[in-house]
Amino acid sequence: MDDRIKLSILIDLYGVLLTDKQRDIMNLYYNDDLSLAEIGEITNTSRQAVFDIIKRCDKLLLEYEEKLCLLKNEIESKLFKENLLEMLELVDNNDKIEKIKKYILENI
Amino acid sequence: MDDRIKLSILIDLYGVLLTDKQRDIMNLYYNDDLSLAEIGEITNTSRQAVFDIIKRCDKLLLEYEEKLCLLKNEIESKLFKENLLEMLELVDNNDKIEKIKKYILENI
Repeated sequence: MDDRIKLSILIDLYGVLLTDKQRDIMNLYYNDDLSLAEIGEITNTSRQAVFDIIKRCDKLLLEYEEKLCLLKNEIESKLFKENLLEMLELVDNNDKIEKIKKYILENI
Repeated sequence: MDDRIKLSILIDLYGVLLTDKQRDIMNLYYNDDLSLAEIGEITNTSRQAVFDIIKRCDKLLLEYEEKLCLLKNEIESKLFKENLLEMLELVDNNDKIEKIKKYILENI
């Protein structure tokens, strides 16, 4: 997975563990695609401080993922759902199977 | 859920986010059921410091759960598995259904 995409997803998963300012800066950088100078202006922070905060938070988010594996589990969950639905496709279709498929789609 | 049991589970889920010393003390208190004095002796820490660390970590673990919901998700996952298996019980049994049940049991 591309590093930028990975960090953007990790902000969604672990952003609640960052401070408001850290989360704002990370979102502006990874999700709104602003430059360091633009973020500095918006958040009233020097360009260098913005850079330092991003580097520090990159590290923090990757450490959280290494410890808690939320992204890894999410990918596995998606694969589990796909496999399950594929297996159910092979069963003779009927109302009960349809209901099970619907339940899976609504709950993973 | 009983507070003591809940905290014991939260240590398993979020213990990696504590320091080694914090995690050791929490495990000795909630999983090995030792007294503050016994923990103080083992970890070479005053009884009061052990008490403070436990109170601080109780708060930390509950905050992590409030933010990341790993325990809540685990309970929901268990319920999802049970519901799914129950729904599959209602389908006319055959090899394909057996294979699906096995897959569910191995993967949630």
